[in-house]
Amino acid sequence: MSVRISPARPEDCATLMRLVLALAEYEQLSHLVVGSEEQLRRELFGVHPVIEAVLAWDDEVAVGFALYFHNYSTFLARRGLYLEDLFVVPEARGRGIGKALIRHCAQVACMRHCGRFEWAVLDWNEPAIAFYRSLGAELLPDWRICRVSGAALMRLAESDARAT
Amino acid sequence: MSVRISPARPEDCATLMRLVLALAEYEQLSHLVVGSEEQLRRELFGVHPVIEAVLAWDDEVAVGFALYFHNYSTFLARRGLYLEDLFVVPEARGRGIGKALIRHCAQVACMRHCGRFEWAVLDWNEPAIAFYRSLGAELLPDWRICRVSGAALMRLAESDARAT
Repeated sequence: MSVRISPARPEDCATLMRLVLALAEYEQLSHLVVGSEEQLRRELFGVHPVIEAVLAWDDEVAVGFALYFHNYSTFLARRGLYLEDLFVVPEARGRGIGKALIRHCAQVACMRHCGRFEWAVLDWNEPAIAFYRSLGAELLPDWRICRVSGAALMRLAESDARAT
Repeated sequence: MSVRISPARPEDCATLMRLVLALAEYEQLSHLVVGSEEQLRRELFGVHPVIEAVLAWDDEVAVGFALYFHNYSTFLARRGLYLEDLFVVPEARGRGIGKALIRHCAQVACMRHCGRFEWAVLDWNEPAIAFYRSLGAELLPDWRICRVSGAALMRLAESDARAT
């Protein structure tokens, strides 16, 4: 039976959280997961959702997911689609499920007239980069992400920055 | 008189669009600006806004802006704040207005319990990187952005990707 891609429903949140944990384990980043199923449910289905997710189902078993949100380009004055997470459980790989999830996101981006579809990749992950290039993606070579978090974010918010 | 930072109002859209065009001109990217004031107004003040903006006012003159939206971390299960654009008109630089705009965003991020505050920088823009580091930002060295747009995005959406 072929794999079916469908939008996450409220009753899928436990399954989705399980897949998020599997992704973290695969990336050896389990210690960084502090979110709960309840928080995930709120961001997906609360009053002002910021994220959307789709699941890949092999019969009754969830074998992968994609989680995305809208970003924005001021020059285009259009939204883009940003893929935050893509994961296929190891035992279901090699069957085109990752590509089917990415294609689904591209379809959403096209239907919504998004100017771009973007995601991040680690620069040493050559198999992933080759795969993404085969899908038509270009790698932006010279942009880097700046991040402020935790105590540094509080310090910045409380810093003296009166413009004169 | 000191500079005042305040959220963009619907009547500020023409001013904001003028600053977006000034930013594009400064970056020598004017040819990439295809958005209109009307599109900007829709994304800021329409039924489902995706962006927010603040303007820096020197008396009655708008001298800068910051435009941001929420992104999301699955591991944190929390929203982040993403700064898409920051601009201060050349004649108003050196007065701390850029820092005041960034600080305002950090305050919004803290008030909304965001896990992170992020933005992108060009890896060769050493003055900007030094400035951001002085604000407590870390540079993520190994993440790169993948982008699919235009005809490549249409091709990906229409590609054969049935998972088996």
